[in-house]
Amino acid sequence: MEVNNIYGIRAILEAIKAKKNLDKVWLLKGQKNPLFKELEFKLKKNNITFSYVPNERLERFQSKNHQGAVASISPIVFDNLEEIISDNFSHKKYPIFLLLENITDARNLGAIIRSASATGVTSIILPKTGSAPINSDTIKTSAGALFSVSICKIDHIKDAIFLLQANNINVISITEKSSNTIYEIDLKGPIALVMGSEEKGISKSILNTCDNSAKLPITGEISSLNVSVACGAVLYEVIRQRSFS
Amino acid sequence: MEVNNIYGIRAILEAIKAKKNLDKVWLLKGQKNPLFKELEFKLKKNNITFSYVPNERLERFQSKNHQGAVASISPIVFDNLEEIISDNFSHKKYPIFLLLENITDARNLGAIIRSASATGVTSIILPKTGSAPINSDTIKTSAGALFSVSICKIDHIKDAIFLLQANNINVISITEKSSNTIYEIDLKGPIALVMGSEEKGISKSILNTCDNSAKLPITGEISSLNVSVACGAVLYEVIRQRSFS
Repeated sequence: MEVNNIYGIRAILEAIKAKKNLDKVWLLKGQKNPLFKELEFKLKKNNITFSYVPNERLERFQSKNHQGAVASISPIVFDNLEEIISDNFSHKKYPIFLLLENITDARNLGAIIRSASATGVTSIILPKTGSAPINSDTIKTSAGALFSVSICKIDHIKDAIFLLQANNINVISITEKSSNTIYEIDLKGPIALVMGSEEKGISKSILNTCDNSAKLPITGEISSLNVSVACGAVLYEVIRQRSFS
Repeated sequence: MEVNNIYGIRAILEAIKAKKNLDKVWLLKGQKNPLFKELEFKLKKNNITFSYVPNERLERFQSKNHQGAVASISPIVFDNLEEIISDNFSHKKYPIFLLLENITDARNLGAIIRSASATGVTSIILPKTGSAPINSDTIKTSAGALFSVSICKIDHIKDAIFLLQANNINVISITEKSSNTIYEIDLKGPIALVMGSEEKGISKSILNTCDNSAKLPITGEISSLNVSVACGAVLYEVIRQRSFS
């Protein structure tokens, strides 16, 4: 399955009107005609992520008569975090939220989505900017799990953390900087796990906002793990603590 | 780092003489000259894997004057399983062997090698045929772990299993067909874990040869995991049982 693009200002305006789920919009810098201004206005009004790009970024779409505006339609519908939290209160199971910061590799994101689906994660929370796109690579490596797991897109990770904390959900950063291992902290209650990218880790201001931290112990020579492997190992420790201890 | 190839019959004969670590050799079908016959003889004598291919398979090397013979040099030196087992007796730690059947995706193999290094796996055991090549993708996804972990190449997985069993190592297949979860079996003693590919799983005859089996429980909707994620989750359960229980 391929991700669909929409080309041209009027086509994107129609897609907004039809409430199509626009993932990303690229606009050619420096345009000033009234229809373009209308598009900018509607994008802002509907809280759709867009960015201004130079001509070279749109060159690969040159056969498409794009008029300086290209949008990608997301293959999935994103959930609303507040609704997911309030829905969860009616369930007897404690939730497991998964917040991903700066996961920019589509294959890693796909593998994480797959593990999240297999371990019954309540919802994956992704920031609107700085995440890998939900594209055909993500869908393929998720082995179709993309269509069975809940994903929320949010403006800022921090706002999501505050919302989770306000609902008595324990927010735990998974970071090698922690002094606790995942085996020493309680993962049985309502939790949200925060994972960062392999290159940058979790940003300092987000680390400071979390309630707790934990790491996977390293007993061998290489001191870091692939992020999707680390995420799977942590999710399985949640399963173990909840069902096998 | 790129994997190096050697082109031409004489060059490959020299490489064999110099004990270079040849990973794979491709020979053009239907050649009959004496030098080619000598190469076939030396490859067999030195137990080097080679295969006969049609002309099209060698087309990408056409600028290299390959004379119908191309070999790849492995970037790493493979260990000998018997030596690794006997070396291990002098250690106080129980070994963890990892046998991989049919892992054909280079990125998955790289991620597994990385996890193996981080969790102190004794040695990874790969069959000579049917595994992903150790190429630049493998090296990259292993994050350099390829150079710190021991890898043995063997002719048949079964022979490796018999050898491990003869040395009192408990051989455990990781398969969703098992009725035990990894949390219910003892992973503290000397063990060898067998993992199969996502598509085919572990072959039946190998499953029957193992001493035990175990699975990762699935609590959500998607019923299978990425093989490198599954491998990481199992290796971390070994670490937990040995150091945190």
